[in-house]
Amino acid sequence: MEAKPVDILLVEDNPTDVELALRALKKSGLANNIFVVNDGEEALDFLYCRNKFENRNPNHTPKVILLDLKLPKVEGLEVLRILKKDEEKKIIPVIVLTSSDQEKDMVESYKLGVNSYIQKPVDFDQFIKAVNQIGYYWLLLNQLPKK
Amino acid sequence: MEAKPVDILLVEDNPTDVELALRALKKSGLANNIFVVNDGEEALDFLYCRNKFENRNPNHTPKVILLDLKLPKVEGLEVLRILKKDEEKKIIPVIVLTSSDQEKDMVESYKLGVNSYIQKPVDFDQFIKAVNQIGYYWLLLNQLPKK
Repeated sequence: MEAKPVDILLVEDNPTDVELALRALKKSGLANNIFVVNDGEEALDFLYCRNKFENRNPNHTPKVILLDLKLPKVEGLEVLRILKKDEEKKIIPVIVLTSSDQEKDMVESYKLGVNSYIQKPVDFDQFIKAVNQIGYYWLLLNQLPKK
Repeated sequence: MEAKPVDILLVEDNPTDVELALRALKKSGLANNIFVVNDGEEALDFLYCRNKFENRNPNHTPKVILLDLKLPKVEGLEVLRILKKDEEKKIIPVIVLTSSDQEKDMVESYKLGVNSYIQKPVDFDQFIKAVNQIGYYWLLLNQLPKK
C-alpha cells in the first residue's frame, strides 16, 4: 500500500527486470516514488483504487506507467485498452516496455493509443540506460495537467 | 518538396522557433531529415500527400511530428484530432511543443491522444536542450512498426 504519491507505476512480472529498472531509476535519483505491480489485474486495481488498493488516494495519479505486455491475469494490451478508453485515465502516459519485437504488438499498441513503445534492450547496460532516459523524459520533460 | 524520407515533421509558424529547433537538431546530428511546414493545412497536405505535396512518397512517414498549437489556417488541436482519428496516421507519434501553459490545451491534447506534451522553455539554452532530448527520445529510443 502506498501512502505518498507515486510517480512511476511499473507493471512487470519478471523479477530481474524489476530489479534492474529499480536500480536504474534510483541511481539516477529520478524516482524515489516508484511502485511495482506484477500483473495486469493488480495494475488496474492500483489505478482504480480497488481491492487491496481500495484505500489508496485516487488523486495520486502516476506521472507515467511502464507496462510490460506479457503479464499474468490481465495482459498488457488489455490494460492499455481499458486505460485509453477511459476519458480520465487516458491522460496518464503509458510506455510499453517489452521484450516483444513482434510487429503486431507494436501496431496494436499504437492503435490502442500507447504514448511510446520501447523494446527492452537485451544488453544490461543498455537496459539501464534506456530506463534512465524514459524516466528523465516522462518525469522531467513531459508535462501533465495539474488537475 | 522532399525526395528523401523525413524523420521529423516540424509544424511551426514562428521563424525564431524554427531556426532554434533546426539548429538544435542539426548540431546534435540527430536529424538531417527534418521538414518544416508553417501552418496546420500544410502539415495535413504533407501527411496526406495533397496539393503541393501530391507527388510525395506516401510510404515516407515521419518518425515524429513536432506540433505547435497556435497555427494559421488549421489549428494544432485540429491537426491532432484528424491524425489520431485516422487508423493509419494515428501510429505517428505527435509531440505538442507549444508556448501554451493553459490547462485546457493540455487536457484536450491528451484526450485527443497526443503522445507527449512539452511546453517550450522560454530560456534559449533550455529550449535547445529540450529539442535535443525530444529528438533523441523519439528518433533513437522509441520504436515504430516497420510497415
